[in-house]
Amino acid sequence: MTIIYTLDMIGTAAFAASGAWVGVRKHMDLFGVLVLGLITAVGGGTLRDLLLGDIPPSSLLDETHLYLSIFVSLMVFFSRHSFKRVEKPLLYFDAIGLGTFVVIGTTRALDSQMGWLIAVLMGVMTGTAGGVMRDVLANQIPLVLRHEIYASACIAGGFLLVFLEYAGMTRPFAALLAAGLVITVRLLAIRYDWALPRS
Amino acid sequence: MTIIYTLDMIGTAAFAASGAWVGVRKHMDLFGVLVLGLITAVGGGTLRDLLLGDIPPSSLLDETHLYLSIFVSLMVFFSRHSFKRVEKPLLYFDAIGLGTFVVIGTTRALDSQMGWLIAVLMGVMTGTAGGVMRDVLANQIPLVLRHEIYASACIAGGFLLVFLEYAGMTRPFAALLAAGLVITVRLLAIRYDWALPRS
Amino acid sequence: MTIIYTLDMIGTAAFAASGAWVGVRKHMDLFGVLVLGLITAVGGGTLRDLLLGDIPPSSLLDETHLYLSIFVSLMVFFSRHSFKRVEKPLLYFDAIGLGTFVVIGTTRALDSQMGWLIAVLMGVMTGTAGGVMRDVLANQIPLVLRHEIYASACIAGGFLLVFLEYAGMTRPFAALLAAGLVITVRLLAIRYDWALPRS
Repeated sequence: MTIIYTLDMIGTAAFAASGAWVGVRKHMDLFGVLVLGLITAVGGGTLRDLLLGDIPPSSLLDETHLYLSIFVSLMVFFSRHSFKRVEKPLLYFDAIGLGTFVVIGTTRALDSQMGWLIAVLMGVMTGTAGGVMRDVLANQIPLVLRHEIYASACIAGGFLLVFLEYAGMTRPFAALLAAGLVITVRLLAIRYDWALPRS
Repeated sequence: MTIIYTLDMIGTAAFAASGAWVGVRKHMDLFGVLVLGLITAVGGGTLRDLLLGDIPPSSLLDETHLYLSIFVSLMVFFSRHSFKRVEKPLLYFDAIGLGTFVVIGTTRALDSQMGWLIAVLMGVMTGTAGGVMRDVLANQIPLVLRHEIYASACIAGGFLLVFLEYAGMTRPFAALLAAGLVITVRLLAIRYDWALPRS
Repeated sequence: MTIIYTLDMIGTAAFAASGAWVGVRKHMDLFGVLVLGLITAVGGGTLRDLLLGDIPPSSLLDETHLYLSIFVSLMVFFSRHSFKRVEKPLLYFDAIGLGTFVVIGTTRALDSQMGWLIAVLMGVMTGTAGGVMRDVLANQIPLVLRHEIYASACIAGGFLLVFLEYAGMTRPFAALLAAGLVITVRLLAIRYDWALPRS
């Protein structure tokens, strides 16, 4: 599925940029910025692979994600004084990454014969755990745990994908519809400032 | 061992409630509260399974713990304005969970042919690592690292279990005695405000 | 390689002491100090083993590291009022540990047929991830992400080792040269206050 692979690369780059940018704002040095970029981009998928037993995780087997994340993090670090300008458009690429990562995580779990609940969980984890690790390393409460509609978009997409698979739809169609749902919900949430009830 | 399974469910519910409650107090949204509930309840056992090589971990194979944790976390979130009333009794259920988790962790390690030191460590980890992850996500120093007698109760129970097994006692008796020791020490510590020397 | 094993023990002790000392300064209790000592000493290697699929990780198979870490952490806790005196010399032992851990991590990855990028990453992770976990548990931004030349020394050593192996040098020589490079760079950085560009 070349479309998914392309979207995966776009999302990886966007996630790496968001991680590296947090590193810059926390006044980390070049190494810290690299680590935050890398972990944000590949952390979620790596944790999912460890839990599902796909070891070594795909991040260590296909090095493309690592090279791309390192390259993007370096770019963010060295263009940090003009990075503010791309902060807003980055949110759209981040949404693309989110949708793609959810779909990849959910289908991986389904292919490992996991039930629907685990499949949705693995999708959500693939989309969000990298950002959680980024925030833990930056010593702040993970944004996704207190923030607008981010994880909810993942949950909706995971459920849709599981439903469509159980309903017999072929994988590529189901994957694109589910990724589309995540991206749409996320973009609408950004546009209209949607939020979950908070405690 | 149906007794252990029942205690395990009680403990899972209590741990999920303690995690969800931290999420509420940190003003997380519904998703954050769910994540903290889930991770507190199944985080310790999941980490133990990863380290011992039981992959996928039991939390992904028996979904009962996940359903129970999600249900309890939702209950805590929606009853959060009257939750303060159950905070104290919850400590007793938490003690039951602690004893049970320690026993499960220690026996799993012994069954994987680990030595006594690892077995005790795995018991302590099963009992405490979920709470550590909860506190890391809530951006606070883990309570168990600075707090009264909590981990110490786990260590005592782990040692007793290993000793009784080496002495030839049958598993169910040894397990119940060890869980009983953890629960007793923990309840006494709550009652009399016992604490470890601090630095 | 008895030299590497000796250096490994020195490094483990130094890392455990650095972890236990952070626990003391954060006013943790005895258990917290033990946990920070243990995790700082074996956390990096354990994470590497999980990722490379060496499960259970070597920290659970050779208990020497655990005993040594527990012993050192207890020593730090009970001598905490006079520990300040050894803080400076400890940095030198820490440098030895760093060099050794990088070499162990890099060679493990090479032996698992990983490419050069992963090998360097695994070396850096083995040297630094334990300290990152220590700082996350102590609720502070990991020092290595914002700090002078620490990770950079690891990266240099990892690259040198990979290069020498590809160039056909025998393992023991390559390992000692690479460890020597890490230790030298680290000691020079301490001596002359070298730092990476910061954001």
